Amino acid sequence: MPEGPVFDEGFRQQFENLLRWRRDVRSFRRDPVDAALVEHLIELASLAPSVGYSQPWRFILVESEDCRECIRQDFERTNRQALESYDGEKARLYARLKLAGLRDAPVQLAVFLDSHTGHGSGLGRATMPETLEYSAVLSVYTLWLAARTYGLGVGWVSILDPAEMSRCLRVPEDWKLIAYLCVGYAEEDSVEPELLRHGWENRLHVEDVILRR
Amino acid sequence: MPEGPVFDEGFRQQFENLLRWRRDVRSFRRDPVDAALVEHLIELASLAPSVGYSQPWRFILVESEDCRECIRQDFERTNRQALESYDGEKARLYARLKLAGLRDAPVQLAVFLDSHTGHGSGLGRATMPETLEYSAVLSVYTLWLAARTYGLGVGWVSILDPAEMSRCLRVPEDWKLIAYLCVGYAEEDSVEPELLRHGWENRLHVEDVILRR
Repeated sequence: MPEGPVFDEGFRQQFENLLRWRRDVRSFRRDPVDAALVEHLIELASLAPSVGYSQPWRFILVESEDCRECIRQDFERTNRQALESYDGEKARLYARLKLAGLRDAPVQLAVFLDSHTGHGSGLGRATMPETLEYSAVLSVYTLWLAARTYGLGVGWVSILDPAEMSRCLRVPEDWKLIAYLCVGYAEEDSVEPELLRHGWENRLHVEDVILRR
Repeated sequence: MPEGPVFDEGFRQQFENLLRWRRDVRSFRRDPVDAALVEHLIELASLAPSVGYSQPWRFILVESEDCRECIRQDFERTNRQALESYDGEKARLYARLKLAGLRDAPVQLAVFLDSHTGHGSGLGRATMPETLEYSAVLSVYTLWLAARTYGLGVGWVSILDPAEMSRCLRVPEDWKLIAYLCVGYAEEDSVEPELLRHGWENRLHVEDVILRR
């Protein structure tokens, strides 16, 4: 049995920096990203855990202007509807937030769940079938963290209509949209979440999220 | 605007090792884990991304023997039912797999979603409400990776009945079980997923999961 790697305090500190400085990026520079690096990030994303080793993640590199325009239109429609759901100060704040980098991000990636994959043979999901979906979610975060180690920012856009996205991207019927990702070099770095900086939401303390039984 | 940290090739290599050697651990040594370290891991888990900065994760440290026994009984019942759903070679293989470390793991942690949290004010989840759940999922994986940097193994147990778990742990009605985690020092390390080593499932190639549009 091979011994696994040992991680030292220096690595742990840098890993914590990675977690702290990972951001949901909405403002991208237009500089291109090496295609080989994008493929490497998808390989790393495929190291995510998956229930029953089902590996249900599917990555669509959205490259054509037609598809990108279809998605931008969907975002704009959906975002307008979302804005209408807020009143007063919250509406004013929402209108000022930049919520997607769809115009500038050089790499755009849709992550879908292949919900009928035979892989995994159902292990671990008889009573919690949602763990299949969770597995695809974990691949998104793996890619996100890995991208940041290469100085790349990722923005997860969820202000989209999944049915319209499936139409724009012509995916099989039993695929479910998990995330639409904008990837590129960020305009700026920050250790604070954008919604914290702009006063949308405050940070919870750790005591608020721990219980004992 | 502070400049973010720059990650070098050495860090990236170690980060890739972390992804490759992270395992779903089912065999634990009984050595105790420092309580302060567990709290630190929960703090790190709280650095996960969350939709609208909703931070909807809730962590229950399951310490009492009563609760642990309640959960073990639920696992055994659920696992028996799962076994009955397989035939032939797959049933024989399933019966031989060790699927949980519930007896030996010194730390056990249930992660719930507070599905009615007011945090985030609904931002980003009008059309994809499942992103709230995904946020809690991301906190699980953050904790998992962070634990591994301290030499700790994590096993995600999903062969459980969520309703029974909520009863065992006496959680509020609008909380949803996301994951039950066994945490401790692993009996052994491996770079290969257990279900791959035992022939349950094979590895997908990256070309099988990438499409272009």
